[in-house]
Amino acid sequence: MDNVFDFKTVDISEDGESLVILDQTLLPGEMKYLHLNTEESIWEAIYKLRVRGAPAIGAAAAYGIYVASGRFKHQDAGEFIKEVKRIRAYLETSRPTAVNLFWALDRMERAAVSAAGKCSGKEGCVEIIRAEMRREAELIHEEDVETCRKIGENCLRLLRPGMGILTHCNAGALATTGIGTALAPVYEGLRLGYDFRIFADETRPLLQGARLTAWELSRAGADVTLICDNMASCVMKSGKIQAVITGADRIAANGDTANKIGTSGIAVLAKEYGIPMYINAPLSTVDLTCGSGEDIKIEERSGEEIYKMWYEKPVSPEGIKTFNPAFDVTDSRYISAIITEKGIAEPPFEQSIKKLFE
Amino acid sequence: MDNVFDFKTVDISEDGESLVILDQTLLPGEMKYLHLNTEESIWEAIYKLRVRGAPAIGAAAAYGIYVASGRFKHQDAGEFIKEVKRIRAYLETSRPTAVNLFWALDRMERAAVSAAGKCSGKEGCVEIIRAEMRREAELIHEEDVETCRKIGENCLRLLRPGMGILTHCNAGALATTGIGTALAPVYEGLRLGYDFRIFADETRPLLQGARLTAWELSRAGADVTLICDNMASCVMKSGKIQAVITGADRIAANGDTANKIGTSGIAVLAKEYGIPMYINAPLSTVDLTCGSGEDIKIEERSGEEIYKMWYEKPVSPEGIKTFNPAFDVTDSRYISAIITEKGIAEPPFEQSIKKLFE
Repeated sequence: MDNVFDFKTVDISEDGESLVILDQTLLPGEMKYLHLNTEESIWEAIYKLRVRGAPAIGAAAAYGIYVASGRFKHQDAGEFIKEVKRIRAYLETSRPTAVNLFWALDRMERAAVSAAGKCSGKEGCVEIIRAEMRREAELIHEEDVETCRKIGENCLRLLRPGMGILTHCNAGALATTGIGTALAPVYEGLRLGYDFRIFADETRPLLQGARLTAWELSRAGADVTLICDNMASCVMKSGKIQAVITGADRIAANGDTANKIGTSGIAVLAKEYGIPMYINAPLSTVDLTCGSGEDIKIEERSGEEIYKMWYEKPVSPEGIKTFNPAFDVTDSRYISAIITEKGIAEPPFEQSIKKLFE
Repeated sequence: MDNVFDFKTVDISEDGESLVILDQTLLPGEMKYLHLNTEESIWEAIYKLRVRGAPAIGAAAAYGIYVASGRFKHQDAGEFIKEVKRIRAYLETSRPTAVNLFWALDRMERAAVSAAGKCSGKEGCVEIIRAEMRREAELIHEEDVETCRKIGENCLRLLRPGMGILTHCNAGALATTGIGTALAPVYEGLRLGYDFRIFADETRPLLQGARLTAWELSRAGADVTLICDNMASCVMKSGKIQAVITGADRIAANGDTANKIGTSGIAVLAKEYGIPMYINAPLSTVDLTCGSGEDIKIEERSGEEIYKMWYEKPVSPEGIKTFNPAFDVTDSRYISAIITEKGIAEPPFEQSIKKLFE
């Protein structure tokens, strides 16, 4: 990753005392790193989307609980574990729907509890627990890097040099600690000289495509063209696109996929224009307890995101009624393949997804 | 129209000396009328989109050439006609692709020349020509009001009370001197208590849906909900939409329709979700010299409209590559009907459109 990017989305400081994140709310105008070591500042960074993207949030929370609990000066292991649990419960409230947040904090707490079980009562037990927590956080980080790399390799097998690729929102290096999910094959292709031409939807209302995807791809030297979301049909129709690749927020057992609002429309268009639609995501995104897209509840957000937040003056009458779903569900019949670190699932997804878990 | 709207898009002042337009660049924040009587100020108003929408531009140009030529104090009819021709040539350069602009200015010049032919050499001939020009401009205005009304009546026959209707861009009262084209049946329905629920795409990058459609519909008391363009699929899928209605910039002989960027994508989605797609436009929008959509050249505009124009700071890296087509072409196979003041054309369009001209 170091060869491609000149930034790090999430890391731990050299002295091991701070979580370091690139503040994504300031992109693309400013590249500013935040050194965070209090639970409040870490909570705020996740809540305000300074760090975003499920895998990046997981890694930030893991390093975060490690550094924040390090400020606790009690040398009693039992008290220290209580403190870890308290911080976990607090950080979990920063993004209530982020599965990776819970998962990473759970791993961190279990690592701490397990270490405490082995050294309880002995001298220096808190230090042993702390070392184990740091190892676990680094493992979460390393696993994410590796997962991204494998998704990239697996997806690249479905692509050919010179292809035009449409992507939506940001499922890139900024959403992970590695080379991304949707963008992983793009970076793999860049390394291997595949000459992809990427089209990035700006992704209203929060503009992750314009602010983040265009930023990270252009910095890495990829050939990226920014378009408005409503131009996808025109771009596809004119023959510029040979594959659509997006990430996913949650994948149901039958392959129905919740992702950033707008994904379902692009998938319908891709099918109509005969273009394959690929979903790239870690296997942890698949929720087998969720039978189909109908079981996925879609978060609705404030209408001010649509007509107010980016503008000096509102661009629509104050008080206008709005509908602002943050995600939509793409029916699996519009999806050509789901690409994970464990391999590629193709229709019928109920069987192929189950196989990936074996 | 006066019963529904508390604004006038285009009019002539009471003293007959100024073109009066509502400055649409200030909407929705400010309602300001401009009184224009110099050719330069009228040219600027059309060029800067202070008045926009093909029928509204036609009416503004008609009143505009009338008031601007009134400032010429020569009493020689021949000299006056030369002045009219000079102003016509000048105003035509304000929006080079606006068919209605040429058409209205041509009607005005022909009215002037025809009047001059009858009174040439007689006392007060310039005054007679001027009266004829004013009559012609008022006729263009009245015809537009009537065309809108008939489009509304014709389209309403395809709709049912309580329907959810999706529209894109602005083809409403602000784009015409009447009740609009796409929005004409909405206003007709409002008058008759049809209780439509309108969903307005914000329409990136120039936000005509958010700024203009949401503004005029909410002022008129319609039930309007603003969404981002990429939410159309989600809204259709959830059963909220029973008809899609848009305007048109140009319709080919086979029914292929050029309209604001994003229309073709909505049409594909409508077909997929089993929702009828209606195009509302005056018959003058049909270009029989244009065989199919392939003959329609699409204007590409500056990328700054996408990532710079509405924002304090650019939301994408400076110099990012962009693709910014202003229009797209919807294949006629996605269109359920084309509704004009002369009646409704249904597939196969080659025959049904021809019939409307009989």
